[in-house]
Amino acid sequence: MNTADLGLPVTVPSTALFTDHYELTMLQAALSGGTADRRSVFEVFTRRLPDGRRYGVVAGTGRVLDAVENFRFDGPLLDFLREKNVVDGPTLDWLADYRFTGDIWGYPEGEVYFPGSPIMRVEGSFAECVLLETVVLSILNHDSAIAAAASRMSSAAGDRPLIEMGARRTHELAAVAASRAAYVGGFTSTSDLAAGFRYNIPTVGTSAHAFTLVHDSERDAFRAQVDSLGAGTTLLVDTYDVTEAVRTAVEIAGPSLGSVRIDSGDLLLVAHRVRQQLDELGATGTKITVTSDLDEYAIASLAAAPVDAYGVGTQLVTGSGHPTASMVYKLVARAESADAGAPLVPVAKRSTGGKTSIGGRKWAARRLDERGVAEAEVIGTGQVPEELADRQLLVELVKGGEVTATAREPLDRLRERHAAARAGLPLSATQLSRGEPVIPTEYLHLGSGS
Amino acid sequence: MNTADLGLPVTVPSTALFTDHYELTMLQAALSGGTADRRSVFEVFTRRLPDGRRYGVVAGTGRVLDAVENFRFDGPLLDFLREKNVVDGPTLDWLADYRFTGDIWGYPEGEVYFPGSPIMRVEGSFAECVLLETVVLSILNHDSAIAAAASRMSSAAGDRPLIEMGARRTHELAAVAASRAAYVGGFTSTSDLAAGFRYNIPTVGTSAHAFTLVHDSERDAFRAQVDSLGAGTTLLVDTYDVTEAVRTAVEIAGPSLGSVRIDSGDLLLVAHRVRQQLDELGATGTKITVTSDLDEYAIASLAAAPVDAYGVGTQLVTGSGHPTASMVYKLVARAESADAGAPLVPVAKRSTGGKTSIGGRKWAARRLDERGVAEAEVIGTGQVPEELADRQLLVELVKGGEVTATAREPLDRLRERHAAARAGLPLSATQLSRGEPVIPTEYLHLGSGS
Repeated sequence: MNTADLGLPVTVPSTALFTDHYELTMLQAALSGGTADRRSVFEVFTRRLPDGRRYGVVAGTGRVLDAVENFRFDGPLLDFLREKNVVDGPTLDWLADYRFTGDIWGYPEGEVYFPGSPIMRVEGSFAECVLLETVVLSILNHDSAIAAAASRMSSAAGDRPLIEMGARRTHELAAVAASRAAYVGGFTSTSDLAAGFRYNIPTVGTSAHAFTLVHDSERDAFRAQVDSLGAGTTLLVDTYDVTEAVRTAVEIAGPSLGSVRIDSGDLLLVAHRVRQQLDELGATGTKITVTSDLDEYAIASLAAAPVDAYGVGTQLVTGSGHPTASMVYKLVARAESADAGAPLVPVAKRSTGGKTSIGGRKWAARRLDERGVAEAEVIGTGQVPEELADRQLLVELVKGGEVTATAREPLDRLRERHAAARAGLPLSATQLSRGEPVIPTEYLHLGSGS
Repeated sequence: MNTADLGLPVTVPSTALFTDHYELTMLQAALSGGTADRRSVFEVFTRRLPDGRRYGVVAGTGRVLDAVENFRFDGPLLDFLREKNVVDGPTLDWLADYRFTGDIWGYPEGEVYFPGSPIMRVEGSFAECVLLETVVLSILNHDSAIAAAASRMSSAAGDRPLIEMGARRTHELAAVAASRAAYVGGFTSTSDLAAGFRYNIPTVGTSAHAFTLVHDSERDAFRAQVDSLGAGTTLLVDTYDVTEAVRTAVEIAGPSLGSVRIDSGDLLLVAHRVRQQLDELGATGTKITVTSDLDEYAIASLAAAPVDAYGVGTQLVTGSGHPTASMVYKLVARAESADAGAPLVPVAKRSTGGKTSIGGRKWAARRLDERGVAEAEVIGTGQVPEELADRQLLVELVKGGEVTATAREPLDRLRERHAAARAGLPLSATQLSRGEPVIPTEYLHLGSGS
């Protein structure tokens, strides 16, 4: 491969290498052993939510669709696999023709989920489905972890805008996905230009301490910034003395100064003082943006403070203590034989060491109480009860290998879906204290079908 | 940009979009205000180690060099910045010609670090240096966090091999960088084919529970795997009953069975039982690989168990509780004016809210005691004391915009460097219990120069 042909990771034409070695060795053994063509159903779910969390947020589905579409083994990949003896010749030949031809259903992106929720269901031959495990989990585990943290932060922030500023705290490409997931979870904008470029998320930013320090004085720095970016800019006021800086800022930009940013100190206290000072200086419309290792708790603690916007970095991109969503991708049913039309049988790991799963192809529905509030995540196999038929959660994403017409959605729709799904949960969903999943998971008809 | 031209993220020809919006607005204001050309020194350091950790591990330096070399603003990026009004026309023109022409020094990759260690120093004009902040921090913060976790795990594992298996638990491209960092920190191999492809890290893997479950019986599955992959393969023995599975495994593969993998249950107990059973069956050479949410503590707890290899996923790629290294990129000195040869003056944020830093261009050296064991990280400005001259830590990585001849190193050398650096620390460095940095940071000559 000519590396000069490789570009900005705006899209990735082949995602097939984002695959664990064992997916390919299993493929080889299944091809030679005759089970490769058995129709199989894999499901993505999580056995539990992160400790203390009340709901999960599905994110990354759109990226999974891209990954599946681009999952091809081209020349250089095949050369690599051959050279390293990862798999044998017949397997390489099979990979060269690989193209996912099965079906994928899943919770729509932005939806909430609970322990056991069949977040995604991948169905096709064993061979074609098993290969997708790693990349599907990478995307969903990362993006859902970030979206869950974002959702808690956005509910704590209420109507105040949230700026995603975490690019410097995580892998440079994880950061782009994190911006996307944060937007789904309720963030308003990002500092990350790559996220603006790739996903059209609004980008914002003004200046850092270095900008003030490179000038002979704070006054010179503020003047240069206002001259160049206009009075509507955000001036960073905590490089030296905050009170002095606010005075200088309004003196230079005038009372129409857009915003000041506070990045250190007791934000609650400082925000109150700065608000009072701004008001006294006539800058009553000047907003206050706070940043400084914020998480959902810090955001909530500032609810009564005169803060107009929050910038969140580290805690967002690291999932606020839970950087991965612990989703797994498990075979839950497979055909009795490789014959077309062979009946599916449910399968599940049964050892005594924990980590068991429930066999059978599942549906899921969210049951509401008489006020229309969610009261249970109902998961079952076999027939869906009539009263839950219109509350089903899984939607068709890929049919016969093709992404369905409705599967690709604009980010704003995902964001709205998440807000609506969260609003449909019991009120205690958004309390930040540690607790149990806000609705229970109920299983129906287990073992009655597949 | 034609997205069809974009390829596997093996290398990224432009890393310039991995940049926060404010780097560009600062650039614009500095260009119009006349400070853009002031010679500036930025340093990367961390104010503290993650809570309880005793040393940090520098990783990602090689990736930073790639990022700096490829940091260019080409047509589509400039179009994006213009369309979104991120910066003005003169700034876009300046960006179109951007190429880093300055110098970079840093701790060599694999080296250990402590609070305050000047892990990387970037020197050039304010404009050219400020732009690199985000991408430099993204890479170093992520990769160093993973390497630190890997180092603790590898010290706990002793001579036993460690397999990195975390791709499914983190962003698909973060996973590739994580494999690389894990290797630097002492891991032996990875499950991630992309990491094998990109960095030539050995890849390994055999089978998952799905492979057993797609067969009519465990016996069929083992037979298919052994037939295809040979008796040297690793059979997963905990899908149903472990004892039964081990018996079947040896029956099918014979006593030369390569390895069995246990992925659930009380690993200590199960490993002892399986070892005894294997020995009784004559499979005395068959190895035992354990996987199942391992971290450094679980690895250490298995030190006396008959375990031959560990597979580590989630805890490795999430930094074992500390997914980011909290490094910052701070202006520490800049020229009095934009004139060539203008003297540098140290600068630092001075507000009372914490987050202060120490001004001046720094050197660093590790002082040894009479037995040759590290006893202090000495950091200073100005002249290096003679007795520390040959213990200096910073090496030249980029000179006049060009990566130096010695800066690019094979991964194995980084891995050896890390092992040697860790071995040079006091013995308590590798105790897993929470503690303080294993050697103190001492500051010399502060304020005496820049």
